[in-house]
Amino acid sequence: MAKLKNISGFPEWLPAQKIVEDRLLETIRRVYGSFGFSPIETRSVEPVSTLAAKGVDKEIYVVQRLHAAESDDAGLALHFDLTVPFARYVAQNFNELVFPFKRYQIQKSWRGERPQKGRFREFYQCDIDIVARDVLPLSADAEAVTVMDQVFRTIAVGRHVIRLNNRKILLGIYSSLGLREEERRQAITAVDKISKIGREGVLKELQDGMGLDLAVAEKIADLAEIKVSASEAEYILSKLEIDDRLFEDGRREMLALLELLPAETGKCVQFDLSLARGLDYYTGVIVEFVFEDHPEFGTVAAGGRYDDLASQFINKKLPGVGMSFGLTRFLDMAFEHGLFPLEEKCPSQILVTVYREEDRAECNRIAQVLRDHGLCAEVFLSSPKLGKQIDYADARGIPQILFFDAQKNKIEVKDLRTKEQAYVPDLEKWASAQAARSSNKRV
Amino acid sequence: MAKLKNISGFPEWLPAQKIVEDRLLETIRRVYGSFGFSPIETRSVEPVSTLAAKGVDKEIYVVQRLHAAESDDAGLALHFDLTVPFARYVAQNFNELVFPFKRYQIQKSWRGERPQKGRFREFYQCDIDIVARDVLPLSADAEAVTVMDQVFRTIAVGRHVIRLNNRKILLGIYSSLGLREEERRQAITAVDKISKIGREGVLKELQDGMGLDLAVAEKIADLAEIKVSASEAEYILSKLEIDDRLFEDGRREMLALLELLPAETGKCVQFDLSLARGLDYYTGVIVEFVFEDHPEFGTVAAGGRYDDLASQFINKKLPGVGMSFGLTRFLDMAFEHGLFPLEEKCPSQILVTVYREEDRAECNRIAQVLRDHGLCAEVFLSSPKLGKQIDYADARGIPQILFFDAQKNKIEVKDLRTKEQAYVPDLEKWASAQAARSSNKRV
Repeated sequence: MAKLKNISGFPEWLPAQKIVEDRLLETIRRVYGSFGFSPIETRSVEPVSTLAAKGVDKEIYVVQRLHAAESDDAGLALHFDLTVPFARYVAQNFNELVFPFKRYQIQKSWRGERPQKGRFREFYQCDIDIVARDVLPLSADAEAVTVMDQVFRTIAVGRHVIRLNNRKILLGIYSSLGLREEERRQAITAVDKISKIGREGVLKELQDGMGLDLAVAEKIADLAEIKVSASEAEYILSKLEIDDRLFEDGRREMLALLELLPAETGKCVQFDLSLARGLDYYTGVIVEFVFEDHPEFGTVAAGGRYDDLASQFINKKLPGVGMSFGLTRFLDMAFEHGLFPLEEKCPSQILVTVYREEDRAECNRIAQVLRDHGLCAEVFLSSPKLGKQIDYADARGIPQILFFDAQKNKIEVKDLRTKEQAYVPDLEKWASAQAARSSNKRV
Repeated sequence: MAKLKNISGFPEWLPAQKIVEDRLLETIRRVYGSFGFSPIETRSVEPVSTLAAKGVDKEIYVVQRLHAAESDDAGLALHFDLTVPFARYVAQNFNELVFPFKRYQIQKSWRGERPQKGRFREFYQCDIDIVARDVLPLSADAEAVTVMDQVFRTIAVGRHVIRLNNRKILLGIYSSLGLREEERRQAITAVDKISKIGREGVLKELQDGMGLDLAVAEKIADLAEIKVSASEAEYILSKLEIDDRLFEDGRREMLALLELLPAETGKCVQFDLSLARGLDYYTGVIVEFVFEDHPEFGTVAAGGRYDDLASQFINKKLPGVGMSFGLTRFLDMAFEHGLFPLEEKCPSQILVTVYREEDRAECNRIAQVLRDHGLCAEVFLSSPKLGKQIDYADARGIPQILFFDAQKNKIEVKDLRTKEQAYVPDLEKWASAQAARSSNKRV
């Protein structure tokens, strides 16, 4: 008999969990769409050469036919994020797309990482990006932050913090401290780890790893401890007294961005000088979404501004800003912390019981009336004692049970939550009232 | 610069096509859920050994880390259908699931087939299955057919035909003609090809390939030409005068199934003795959904009854019935035949134009009011001449444009389809009317 086991890093949910995942996917899709982002989906594979060029530190999964005779699909691999495929898609369909191109993309990605808690080898990412030809206004960065803020508000499982910074601010500061270009990048990588290795760890990297003077290293570490609300950002930035053009650009962008955010979004913002985002390609605004009361969730969504999306593929300048919600990791944590109730094991809102097999056709018709009103209704597939049918509803988490008495042509519905049973004189009327109630309930 | 090319068999859609795909996915999900099927999703990979055991004639895609140092994920491959993973999932979560277990599963599968028109190496399948412990009543088969019928009715792109047969009828007939067990299976494989190779081709396989007598081969070919409506099935089956127990079981099942189907579903049924479904594991009812006016679409959905889902994994008898809708292939054909309009390139229903940058905050607020009413609204990201903003809406297929005049604090909306422009005195009221209209329009 074949072995049954989980494959580390490839999560699978039970139906009740999958129902939660589907609701979240639907919510995220709806919010992204409501801001006018177009859906796209790319193939799961790209040429290895494309991925390997970008896949620093990422383990790539190569795909090969088991009985590979020809070489036509040699060199394919599963994508490890949605950014590289998106860049290729934009370049490939350049003449078909309207710019600025706003797209969302919700798909699985795969990384052959060493599996450990909270790391997945197969996972859903929910990305938005806005790319423009040549110039992309800062209103796009504000929109990307606003959209993600809206996602967190809609999911509504806890207060979120929007950590904001700007690469130009960091690079300007480091430049004013006399760091050379390569050193500035190394400093970003070091500061990025502050939440993991602490101030001492960062100092060590800056001094021992990079050979910076203690005074410079301490200045960098000091600055990385600045975290203020949106309303204090202007004051803090002026107090830094950095004389550097890039810093000045970053300062102006940060303040303009804060102006552009809706007031309620701004209230969640923390201007955080320790935020560096390790990945290389960001050039301006950088953002992370975390939960105020659940720091152990880590970064749930993140993104930023980049100068050039697709220079690997096309000779056009395409600046963009993107944001990614890491759904699988979030869900794993959320299930562990019991953030979602898992009572529903199936979508059914009503079980239509079958008292005698000869009533089945009528029971099917009743269920279809309910469905036609937008309700989820299932008919019990055999006709054992009603107690057994009620047990089934209970086990599946179906809240209501319908009884049809063929002899009296009478319908009754029992609510398993309240234990109340009521006669239903007009099925259509009842169904439409139920549907209105349930569409109000489900966000 | 990296090469840009399609990878044969890995389709990708433009945004307007993806919007259609997403609507279909949503429709299918809704219909499946409305009958109480629970969603599940399995990991994309299974052990090669599991897949190879079932993967007759299927090309398996092996997955391997590019820099494979350890052997921990050696022997993984992408699933080629959703049935094997489903069987494994049921066995693995046996004690967590409620039986009969009704599940739907909508995911991509991968097959390393030789690419040709209409064959995909990466494709969406939309499956439902009902599995029970030990015994599964025929009402489950009827439900599976009804659900799929409902999917076709909801998609509503053309009249569909539900081709129905029963493996027991075929095996019973072949048995009564003196075929041995192995020959019966070969005959099914031969008859299955009749639409491709014609009567002559089938005769040739039965005679030359299997060594059957001309008379027996002709009898089999004759029967394979019987296609009647549901109402004629009983008469035809009685006229065949086959004296065989299995045939008799199949006959009774067929008639009972037709009784169990809703009247409107029954009207689409064609009892078709040529329907054999090549795959080995079906043991009872077999079904194919085709379009009456689009035979070139081939089989769009198909399925049937099987005796044992998961004996490969667990020592339990789990009979089931399943149905699969081949979404990617259907979409490819549908786009080619222009069955869906492709005017919408983004979800936006309204573009909020921005006359001056200083009005942007107010424009954002206006758009959020529209979103809060369930509408999709986007704000133009810069503030060039209005003509340019209108061109953008036009190119993206956004039907309505909102103008905000900050000085007069006045909102007007222009409909690009009717060219009518109207003053909007009360935005909330207008938004809620629009939302009601658009939710009526979208099924």
